[in-house]
Amino acid sequence: MPGVRLPGLGAFQVWGSSTDVGKTLLSAGLAANSGNYLRNLRYIKPVQTGYPDDDDSLFVKRHAKPQRDVDVKVLLGYRDPVSPHRAVEASKAIEDSKLIQLVSEEIGRTSDSSISLVETAGGVLSPAPSGSLQADVYRPLRMTAVLVGSGQLGGISETLSAYESLLIRGYDVPVVFVFGTEHENHKAIDKAVDANVLVAPSPPPKTEPLTKYFEEDGLREAFSSTCKTIASYMNSTESRLRTLSEEAKDHIWWPFTQHATTNKVTTIDSAFGDDFTVATTDPKDKVNLSTQFDACSSWWTNGLGHGNPKLALEAAKGASRYGHVIFPEVAHQPAVDLTNLLLDNVGSTWADRVFFTDNGSTAVEVGLKMILRKRANDLYGRRDEYPWKNMKVIALEESYHGDTLGVMDCSPSSVFNATQMPWYKPNGIFLDPPTVSMRHSQWIIEGDKVLEKHGERKDLFAMEKRLTSSLAEDYRQQIKAVLASEEPEVIGGLLMEPVLQGAGGMRFIDPLYQRILADECQRTGIPVMVDEVFTGLWRLGAPSASQMLGIKPDVAAFAKLLTGGLLPLSVTLASDEIFKVFEGKKKEEALLHGHSYTAHPIGCQVAVHALQEYGKRFSGSGQQPQYWDNQMCKDISSMPNVNGVVNLGTVLAVRLAGSGSGYTATGSVAVTQALREKGIYARPLGNTVYLMCSPVTEVQKCDELISELKQTLSHVLEVREPAIAV
Amino acid sequence: MPGVRLPGLGAFQVWGSSTDVGKTLLSAGLAANSGNYLRNLRYIKPVQTGYPDDDDSLFVKRHAKPQRDVDVKVLLGYRDPVSPHRAVEASKAIEDSKLIQLVSEEIGRTSDSSISLVETAGGVLSPAPSGSLQADVYRPLRMTAVLVGSGQLGGISETLSAYESLLIRGYDVPVVFVFGTEHENHKAIDKAVDANVLVAPSPPPKTEPLTKYFEEDGLREAFSSTCKTIASYMNSTESRLRTLSEEAKDHIWWPFTQHATTNKVTTIDSAFGDDFTVATTDPKDKVNLSTQFDACSSWWTNGLGHGNPKLALEAAKGASRYGHVIFPEVAHQPAVDLTNLLLDNVGSTWADRVFFTDNGSTAVEVGLKMILRKRANDLYGRRDEYPWKNMKVIALEESYHGDTLGVMDCSPSSVFNATQMPWYKPNGIFLDPPTVSMRHSQWIIEGDKVLEKHGERKDLFAMEKRLTSSLAEDYRQQIKAVLASEEPEVIGGLLMEPVLQGAGGMRFIDPLYQRILADECQRTGIPVMVDEVFTGLWRLGAPSASQMLGIKPDVAAFAKLLTGGLLPLSVTLASDEIFKVFEGKKKEEALLHGHSYTAHPIGCQVAVHALQEYGKRFSGSGQQPQYWDNQMCKDISSMPNVNGVVNLGTVLAVRLAGSGSGYTATGSVAVTQALREKGIYARPLGNTVYLMCSPVTEVQKCDELISELKQTLSHVLEVREPAIAV
Repeated sequence: MPGVRLPGLGAFQVWGSSTDVGKTLLSAGLAANSGNYLRNLRYIKPVQTGYPDDDDSLFVKRHAKPQRDVDVKVLLGYRDPVSPHRAVEASKAIEDSKLIQLVSEEIGRTSDSSISLVETAGGVLSPAPSGSLQADVYRPLRMTAVLVGSGQLGGISETLSAYESLLIRGYDVPVVFVFGTEHENHKAIDKAVDANVLVAPSPPPKTEPLTKYFEEDGLREAFSSTCKTIASYMNSTESRLRTLSEEAKDHIWWPFTQHATTNKVTTIDSAFGDDFTVATTDPKDKVNLSTQFDACSSWWTNGLGHGNPKLALEAAKGASRYGHVIFPEVAHQPAVDLTNLLLDNVGSTWADRVFFTDNGSTAVEVGLKMILRKRANDLYGRRDEYPWKNMKVIALEESYHGDTLGVMDCSPSSVFNATQMPWYKPNGIFLDPPTVSMRHSQWIIEGDKVLEKHGERKDLFAMEKRLTSSLAEDYRQQIKAVLASEEPEVIGGLLMEPVLQGAGGMRFIDPLYQRILADECQRTGIPVMVDEVFTGLWRLGAPSASQMLGIKPDVAAFAKLLTGGLLPLSVTLASDEIFKVFEGKKKEEALLHGHSYTAHPIGCQVAVHALQEYGKRFSGSGQQPQYWDNQMCKDISSMPNVNGVVNLGTVLAVRLAGSGSGYTATGSVAVTQALREKGIYARPLGNTVYLMCSPVTEVQKCDELISELKQTLSHVLEVREPAIAV
Repeated sequence: MPGVRLPGLGAFQVWGSSTDVGKTLLSAGLAANSGNYLRNLRYIKPVQTGYPDDDDSLFVKRHAKPQRDVDVKVLLGYRDPVSPHRAVEASKAIEDSKLIQLVSEEIGRTSDSSISLVETAGGVLSPAPSGSLQADVYRPLRMTAVLVGSGQLGGISETLSAYESLLIRGYDVPVVFVFGTEHENHKAIDKAVDANVLVAPSPPPKTEPLTKYFEEDGLREAFSSTCKTIASYMNSTESRLRTLSEEAKDHIWWPFTQHATTNKVTTIDSAFGDDFTVATTDPKDKVNLSTQFDACSSWWTNGLGHGNPKLALEAAKGASRYGHVIFPEVAHQPAVDLTNLLLDNVGSTWADRVFFTDNGSTAVEVGLKMILRKRANDLYGRRDEYPWKNMKVIALEESYHGDTLGVMDCSPSSVFNATQMPWYKPNGIFLDPPTVSMRHSQWIIEGDKVLEKHGERKDLFAMEKRLTSSLAEDYRQQIKAVLASEEPEVIGGLLMEPVLQGAGGMRFIDPLYQRILADECQRTGIPVMVDEVFTGLWRLGAPSASQMLGIKPDVAAFAKLLTGGLLPLSVTLASDEIFKVFEGKKKEEALLHGHSYTAHPIGCQVAVHALQEYGKRFSGSGQQPQYWDNQMCKDISSMPNVNGVVNLGTVLAVRLAGSGSGYTATGSVAVTQALREKGIYARPLGNTVYLMCSPVTEVQKCDELISELKQTLSHVLEVREPAIAV
């Protein structure tokens, strides 16, 4: 699956604000008068109804004839002269993906120097043969849009609405063309849009021939200008894409990036579903667009797919109803709806309150303030000041909770923190937990030595059985020993990423260990906080990773997938016991933490939509699919130079054998580089290579991806060291 | 200016996807068949063209007659039978605000139990008499929308686009009504919308009378069902608004809020421009909607007004083109555009790089990592580890930089931090700067004693003159003494809010002092960071407060107004000297900080729009207006019980005399409470009362506000202690 080449700069699409506004008329005019601006303009009509009696392509060919012999093509013809979704009823349906593949291939048939004009059917939101809305169907190709508006009475509104429908689906609309000047619609349209508005006289009534009309100087001038405008827009787009990466490299300071060694910058022109549309410049300085599968799930955020039109509409709804409104002592519908959804879902068995912040880091900082205050209250009772300077959290080795100082202090010393901030101080009692990975088709639990082996992943989560095992007893004793070795005043709480440590290298912690750790803490009055920023909301195949462990935390942080992968918003859920500690007569007793955009309505609105969508797909009877084929995982786990495989929900991680380890290791660079050449945008994570899909990725896609990964591993790893055998 | 009562739940509006789709037909049908569902339904046609030959109100009256005698009203009639914006040419124009005032008043004339139906003219985006788009004009009233779609060929697209145009302007559209079943448009529409779709047969041709048509059972049934659906929607809206505050109080954990003493929760149903639409329940359990001026600028974020349709459209464009895409080593257009705009604007004289994070707190944490590393490098040269544990920042008393631990540590011990987090450690050398405020019409600079008095605020910023004054020399010596009293290794950098400390109580620091402080630091090699989260981007009347001081910082953080007041996004700007310190061969030498949604395209897209809008209004020849009338400020500054006034750009702050002080003081609670009763949503800030408008608020509005404030102060303060005289 090499990255799919997109028509991008080699094609544009003609849309109508409604049916019968002159799309074909304009197409014919452009085809005839493309001249020097749009060289070798070709015409493609993907869907033609009333065919062959109606055939827009013949109309275009005939009326362009005096100027040029235009290459024209109809891809799908339906006999009924009705909307495509109804015409198809009597015929066989065609899937959206198939339709855009046909269009893409047809455009690809053109020579490098020619431009394709693709004419749509009906209005922008007319149903395609599948019944999906046309503007949604063509969105993956994201061709430059030319909108034909209406010159009739009422046409201003119709045109502007159609224009907005294209914009809110991520299209660029540089040109709006209007036939008819009598109502001066073009003037009002010009005032309202951010596009070039061009106008031509109305054609004669349908009964009269168009020959004379097409010969009018004014008309030819309008068509010619339109071609020039389209060409100029496409050229300027190409220029911008050519220089964008250099501009970025010169002035942007990227996160987690060593600029001195950065060579390759990826220019992302747009994104849709699981794919980025990436621009590259070839040796002839021509810009090409192709797809790259977003295998890092854009830092693990991608929820409902990039450029999701429903999510974009929800964002616009939130923005236009409220903008942002201040939150303390305020109720607004999206925040209340989101609160209810979260408490009914991931918080259903334990949480009573939702606190809003902006990202995972701040959500965990808030959670820290919650659990530490709770613990201090339990230890010392209500006081104005606590003797709590030495309080620490129990945390795990290789943990990562974000980059602000408070959460940095919860991770052991590493490159993330020690050289980054003078005030960094590891305020944790750090435990080294046993981990799990698949090697030679077996799930192996390992601490200092191999502890257990299991055939199926689900065995690892069979808590009822495992809690009575001798391993459980070992864990319990170890944990008890740690808790007993510290003064109770020193232990402020437990903080951990449940099940899978992300930035730590996709480390799968033995679920039994975390279960017992949480149980023992709560049994001895130590508050338990889980950082579900990465693991929560269906990332690992369940609403929350805590549920997979069967624990009821006191505090939990969620972010990333919360907004469906659109924008920053995070929440910290807490139990009533935690909340009550902050109630009192004095303002100072409250939790004095807040950010300007706390619970911003636009974020809450899209989060409500995202949670509802996840719910519809996976809750109740619906199950999340097995994204990564089990047999393929087993195969990879048996490959030489592979040190272990983890597949959990949307995550597939392969730890490579090699000398380096940890975050700065470069073992996986060669593999991710090879994957990118195949159209898979993977990012290295120390000596781990991972693929991550969104919760809504099709399994078939995952099958292709894992197959590519396997092949890539076998090619690239041949030249590397042997794996560790177990 | 009491809060304006809004029609809200007492009216709904009938929109058309285009002209001639049956708005008046539906209105007549609803008026006739409102029965028990919509009691005493009245009909209002705000704008009628072709009047009096065309008069939709008479049509409605006539056709409803057999069932009911309907009260109807045309508010504005234009003779020309064309679009209102053209009809008005021959007549006198009417401003949008005047039009909605007329509508609002007309609705207000109805008895409590009746419902008004307001019929629009043309399509949803047809121009109003002013030329503004109709759906924008009516937005402040935000009546429930009923959309009449089209049953014609092409009508699906037209209807869905019109529906989207309403949604992206913040309207609720619970009903779409379609006349005509022959193309089955209603089925496709029903599939695509989140509204109730109702349908009726097409009316007979225009030449035939409609009497028989209106008597058809099916038709009456459709109208009646529509009335029922509208009524049921309006009732459920009212129910939701009735309980929203309780739901919020029960499950939301608000920031900076002592829940135990929270009595009054504000239910914000929507917002537009400077106003919240607030829902309140009267003693009869009826829900009323009214406006409250957002005088806290929603925690100082409001930039281009709430519910700004252009900003919402930009948000949707960013969301639909990209969703979120990963950022390290990536270039995307909105991020590059925003970077260029920032460097050309607030960073023009000094900054070379832009680092993106999510909020002010994280932007300052990043800036800290930048300046401290720079300082360590200057002191010790490039090392793997620095002996920098004791490094501190120079900072100011009463400073506030956010609530994450790193920035908490930059503020002196206070209720914001000391009781909130055991790990809090004040890592600052805290200076107590001289402050400025107006008392008895004079600007008074005060340290331990009164230092200077000035007649005009601009004198305070006349740096060239002031830098050679004896006060400047005093400041210089004080600051030099502080710098000399610490080992150089201890001083990591300077961090300050330039000009105005926000959360510290709107403290106006003497600009001369901050200028000299920054100069002296930079002269001795100490990096200077400004926290412009609150002060930057035209909040104080200039692009940045640093520019007001005439300083070129090494690092600066911006947030709040960056996105026009829509959603979280922040930036940390840095000079090339800072950036270079992080370049090296090793990854660890880089700035290892990042958040998942770094530089999210939706945020960058709206920020680009916001900066362009600010630029258009205020840059170059354009000047920001004097929002707060100077004479009124002087008057207030001479009132008893007023301890000082600060007016800077959009900010007007009045410090009250009183026993309490600091954040927990409650001196201003009585004043803000009284203001809210007058429709001004102010928030107390210790013993300071402040009004803050958005950069785009009209001066006339500010005149009304300051006048209300003055009156309120004189009433409320009468009963309080005498002010301190100077």
